[in-house]
Amino acid sequence: MTKSIAVDCMGGDSAPKVIIEGLKVVFDSGVEDVHFNLFGDDSLEEFVPLIGGKYSDRFSVYGAPAVDLKNMKPSVAIRMAKNSSMGLAIQSVKNGESDACISAGNTGAYMALSKVLLKMIPGIERPAIATYIPKDNGNCVMLDLGANADCSPKNIIDFAIMGEAFARVRLGKESPKVAILNIGAEDIKGNLVVQDAYKQITDNNLLKNFHGFIEGDQIFKTDIDVVVTDGFSGNIALKVTEGTVRFIMERVKKAFKTNWLTKLSYLILKKALVRNLGFLNPGNHNGAMLLGLNGIVVKSHGGTDAVGFANAIKATIKILEDDFVQRVKEQIENQE
Amino acid sequence: MTKSIAVDCMGGDSAPKVIIEGLKVVFDSGVEDVHFNLFGDDSLEEFVPLIGGKYSDRFSVYGAPAVDLKNMKPSVAIRMAKNSSMGLAIQSVKNGESDACISAGNTGAYMALSKVLLKMIPGIERPAIATYIPKDNGNCVMLDLGANADCSPKNIIDFAIMGEAFARVRLGKESPKVAILNIGAEDIKGNLVVQDAYKQITDNNLLKNFHGFIEGDQIFKTDIDVVVTDGFSGNIALKVTEGTVRFIMERVKKAFKTNWLTKLSYLILKKALVRNLGFLNPGNHNGAMLLGLNGIVVKSHGGTDAVGFANAIKATIKILEDDFVQRVKEQIENQE
Repeated sequence: MTKSIAVDCMGGDSAPKVIIEGLKVVFDSGVEDVHFNLFGDDSLEEFVPLIGGKYSDRFSVYGAPAVDLKNMKPSVAIRMAKNSSMGLAIQSVKNGESDACISAGNTGAYMALSKVLLKMIPGIERPAIATYIPKDNGNCVMLDLGANADCSPKNIIDFAIMGEAFARVRLGKESPKVAILNIGAEDIKGNLVVQDAYKQITDNNLLKNFHGFIEGDQIFKTDIDVVVTDGFSGNIALKVTEGTVRFIMERVKKAFKTNWLTKLSYLILKKALVRNLGFLNPGNHNGAMLLGLNGIVVKSHGGTDAVGFANAIKATIKILEDDFVQRVKEQIENQE
Repeated sequence: MTKSIAVDCMGGDSAPKVIIEGLKVVFDSGVEDVHFNLFGDDSLEEFVPLIGGKYSDRFSVYGAPAVDLKNMKPSVAIRMAKNSSMGLAIQSVKNGESDACISAGNTGAYMALSKVLLKMIPGIERPAIATYIPKDNGNCVMLDLGANADCSPKNIIDFAIMGEAFARVRLGKESPKVAILNIGAEDIKGNLVVQDAYKQITDNNLLKNFHGFIEGDQIFKTDIDVVVTDGFSGNIALKVTEGTVRFIMERVKKAFKTNWLTKLSYLILKKALVRNLGFLNPGNHNGAMLLGLNGIVVKSHGGTDAVGFANAIKATIKILEDDFVQRVKEQIENQE
């Protein structure tokens, strides 16, 4: 049966151009059996011809205004945005017209709107943002990456259970290994929130394969499948990683540009470098999921390019195939 | 007048070997007018001859047992460690026999012991760990890096004021620019603690040059001199940075080893890479300071090599020359 995805065409730094170009990449790559419901304003007209012609029966366009949600408190944004391209894309999931929605727009507003319109999975208090972290031995999943600046132990436990379900579906692991990010690996370390969460998880056997705590420098190295953290530390960890990668890459480029010999070396090394470092490109693993909602809600990087947005769409299709929300619900029920 | 530094010779992964070798590096580099009080057990005897002979009047050795403080709660560690090499080094500062102390041992115990033995600067509730972060346009200072897993707004404000004083002394800036690490740059973003701290700082003009919030990916890029954070997020940010650097470097090395041509390229590039990336070596900016204490307490990386430990000693000497504690006291009094 054909699935359908609602696309907020007005969200992100280069919308709607990059969004439509991303769709074209998806169509050109041979993806079938997915229909796209596009939400956007008149500025879409300029770009839709890109995917017109042979793909014209693969999408529908619905008029919806862009609303600039930057610097808006989530409460204000919700009111403003219900009828925006983002709001209508989420409503399309709520009404059953789409099976999932995707946006590159403001995260806070997207989260708040999704929570109001789709409601939470029973038993989960707050949504969390989860994404992949590339590692030497396969990806791992990390959450929360910024949805919840203040977290309780119950929130951390919810994230751990949702993350375990997410990793089972997305990484294809039967029994994903879960760890809580902390400032020490010993069980006496950490703040009150992670200490309490750790105690509850171990006392009540809430996770099948619980590793305990890991430190920030272990994320890339260990065989952990799910890294659990509050949204404040998690967002800082993610952004610091991105900043460090960018900083080092700029320095390496500078080294290559020293003289004609080093420039020549670059030509020799280019292929090997791309093979070893290409997976660090954020676009290659674009598509974070807002977990805990009664529906599939995917967030793309705001600054993505067309290939990155196409990757986020492909991740959405994979999640759709896995019947993810139903599986998380069962997981939560089994835990209780 | 000759200053003196108390050295815990038993702390760190490769003590006492690396500690004594580090001292030799300091002596060999021509540092004068500093006397070292060394605290350690019988295992010192094997290594002291390294700095005997022409430097023998530059240090004194005091017998003190090593105590393995790993996995100990700070409260237990305090009791156990008062008469350890670490405890006696701190007491030497308390008694006025040394002007500063340095250890590569367990951070939690070092912090707890220093607080009990030296007491806090009046007006400061809790100590913080501060270090340098290398950047394109000069170093910046970041704190707290793990001393305080749970922080109040008052703690964050204290860290900001101490960090400002530390940057004034160590970076030589008249009016250091201070920012709080957050999950968004807008002033409505963040958890309750940073929100409250931000409000108090701006409402009461507590800092001369307050930038507001910065995100994790901005640390390396902006002209911020002082990055303020709670010890939980700060430790995670620091460790994630270290892990990312190590991970990328391993990947780059792998690329270089692809074939004989890429190996040749490495030989061509080596000098340029070291020039552009050498400052990322943690040993080059070793020597974090425990701020807020009534005395100069410096922490070296536990896994440091001799050159790294020597750099931590040199950083200690620089802090001594600046009469840092007195300057922070004045700074705190002026703020009130």
